[in-house]
Amino acid sequence: MEQIKGGVCAAKGFKAFGIHAGIRKNKDKKDLALIVSETKAAAAATYTQNLVKGAPLCVTKENLKDGYAQAIICNSGNANTCNANGIEIAEAMCNLVEKHTGISKTDVVVASTGVIGQPLDITPIESAMQSLASGLNPDGSNDAAEAIMTTDAKKKEIAFSFEIGGKLCKIGGIAKGSGMIHPNTATMLVFVTTDASITPEMLQKALSADILDSFNMISIDGDTSTNDMVSVLANGMAENPIIDRTGEDFDAFCKALSAVTTYLCRQIAKDGEGATKLLESRVRGAIDKENARIIAKSVICSSLFKAAMFGADANWGRILCAIGYSGAKCDINHVDVSLASTAGKIDVCKNGSGVDFDEDEAKKILTEDEIIIDITFREGSGEARSWGCDLTYDYVKINGDYRT
Amino acid sequence: MEQIKGGVCAAKGFKAFGIHAGIRKNKDKKDLALIVSETKAAAAATYTQNLVKGAPLCVTKENLKDGYAQAIICNSGNANTCNANGIEIAEAMCNLVEKHTGISKTDVVVASTGVIGQPLDITPIESAMQSLASGLNPDGSNDAAEAIMTTDAKKKEIAFSFEIGGKLCKIGGIAKGSGMIHPNTATMLVFVTTDASITPEMLQKALSADILDSFNMISIDGDTSTNDMVSVLANGMAENPIIDRTGEDFDAFCKALSAVTTYLCRQIAKDGEGATKLLESRVRGAIDKENARIIAKSVICSSLFKAAMFGADANWGRILCAIGYSGAKCDINHVDVSLASTAGKIDVCKNGSGVDFDEDEAKKILTEDEIIIDITFREGSGEARSWGCDLTYDYVKINGDYRT
Repeated sequence: MEQIKGGVCAAKGFKAFGIHAGIRKNKDKKDLALIVSETKAAAAATYTQNLVKGAPLCVTKENLKDGYAQAIICNSGNANTCNANGIEIAEAMCNLVEKHTGISKTDVVVASTGVIGQPLDITPIESAMQSLASGLNPDGSNDAAEAIMTTDAKKKEIAFSFEIGGKLCKIGGIAKGSGMIHPNTATMLVFVTTDASITPEMLQKALSADILDSFNMISIDGDTSTNDMVSVLANGMAENPIIDRTGEDFDAFCKALSAVTTYLCRQIAKDGEGATKLLESRVRGAIDKENARIIAKSVICSSLFKAAMFGADANWGRILCAIGYSGAKCDINHVDVSLASTAGKIDVCKNGSGVDFDEDEAKKILTEDEIIIDITFREGSGEARSWGCDLTYDYVKINGDYRT
Repeated sequence: MEQIKGGVCAAKGFKAFGIHAGIRKNKDKKDLALIVSETKAAAAATYTQNLVKGAPLCVTKENLKDGYAQAIICNSGNANTCNANGIEIAEAMCNLVEKHTGISKTDVVVASTGVIGQPLDITPIESAMQSLASGLNPDGSNDAAEAIMTTDAKKKEIAFSFEIGGKLCKIGGIAKGSGMIHPNTATMLVFVTTDASITPEMLQKALSADILDSFNMISIDGDTSTNDMVSVLANGMAENPIIDRTGEDFDAFCKALSAVTTYLCRQIAKDGEGATKLLESRVRGAIDKENARIIAKSVICSSLFKAAMFGADANWGRILCAIGYSGAKCDINHVDVSLASTAGKIDVCKNGSGVDFDEDEAKKILTEDEIIIDITFREGSGEARSWGCDLTYDYVKINGDYRT
């Protein structure tokens, strides 16, 4: 497996583009993205578990019922959620895709992200569709990735090549994250494309398994968005023997998918609203995987611990506190904790009690921008990783006046 | 029922005091409190549900097994948690109470609050005990309330008088809150004293029921502390007919207890770390009380909503989002939301969709320091209230360098 360029256009047969349609006031900010496949693609998706679901998600779910799709349209600046005419507008977006690309409106993944509860005006989208569709190109992943950003500071894009049955396949993805991120069996907006040949059933199986260890293991602020969605389109143009069962080929595909999603997870966490640091919590030796996941996630969700990391303060008591209230089964009296970064590694807790450590060394380690929290139990072989970020003044600032 | 002065010394037979023992470096900050009853008192307590439990809680639990206690000792500045010698130190604190007051060491409620994972030195407590015990006085509630404060900006103290069986009874309490507050079937440090006569069993029953609607309904930051505890001592000196069963007298006692705990809850929420506003979420018309509680609490726990309140931004979509991910059963398409304060009331959402409102008026309402979020369903008679605070720069500041 090799990292390559091209994001969602890396795989054969995919084009993309992104422009400023006018949904956002800032003319320098692209706000509408389109991704299309030359041929119909197997499609899989996972959606937010929030009871309040964005209208676009409902329309997408309906469109993906047959397991296939060919285009993705996504706007930023407005979530099209909690609006009386939400479904109507989301369907109108699909109609516009059909009108300007010829792709059937029922083969469209539609997504929106931004403010909740303000009606989304279709007019700017209508006016922009001609330019958007005619701008579609094999180098357009970058533009699409920019267009779906909201409070993201950095664009999130990745691609890999891999082999299945002697054929070179490619897989790539873009994502937007930043705030209201605490996925629960679903996640923020992530679009993955691949030219691997795989049935819709196996594609969904791969995605559903993947998110348990990828997007479900990140949290920026504990808020599960109403519009979270991960979708994958696989158009089969790599011409590998179709993956229609578990086995070696399926495993190779899952591994490539995981490379894309894990990269995007880290990027989303690192670029959390106001974040200055990526936090990676690694749990080992837990009773089982599920308990390891619960513990890893609880730690990176703790506001107190996140604030301590902002201050580069090795306040490890907050880690133990977060393990203790996580609800996981674990022996808190036999846990070791250490903190690490490129500047070194330091043990802060052995068997549930504090150990002496050099505060200056700890400060040096925690001043780096990627911090690893190593949590080791002696109870089993359960392992998990989670990703989060520090809690900063800027998180408060960004969310204190998001709408203005 | 009437509000009176005196806090934990309002009830007959209680004395208290608080001094600077030297656990904290700042000499102007009291850090050791003692509360005693003239006679043995029925005692009840609830403890944190965190798996990591402070050593003092374990010792207190053991001491209260027989249902009685006579003294409370509490230090701030160090939580005596995650220390190898924690139990030993907590027991040493009880021994010191016995030595200096004559009250049996097994009749002591012991509590600690502050940093986790740093051994608590008994020396300053030992040296201070003589002055602390000799300073005990019937006007000492104020000193005790000050001594248990950590990052609290304000002292929390209240008392009420009420009647049972023709006898005048009194009940009062002190509390410390501020950070690491997200009680779960237990809470931060709250000490309540009363001269009502009640059996230990009925006292525990009253307390256990009370916390479901009081301390369990507040959250500052979603972190359930390792040292949360609420305890009540009832010494019976009001000489009312002993409350040993449910009925009118028990109800009168519960009402008085609730007056004390509700007041302290609001104070704790309002004085959350860095808080500038008290948020009260009121849910009505939910399927049942339990679902109403889940919804009310989810809203005041949302970091995004809390940040919006700091910015006086009527971003009600975040309220709906928090209801949606709460896990409660509810019909999100038939919910109304309004925001209110002493400056007025404004409807922001009807039947799950936004309604037009005057942003300037909303801003005016949200600029006040007590905000009520009214959430109304049409599904049943479930009602609940919860209390929280806004998320501010100062929360981050306080917790970015708490130990330094």
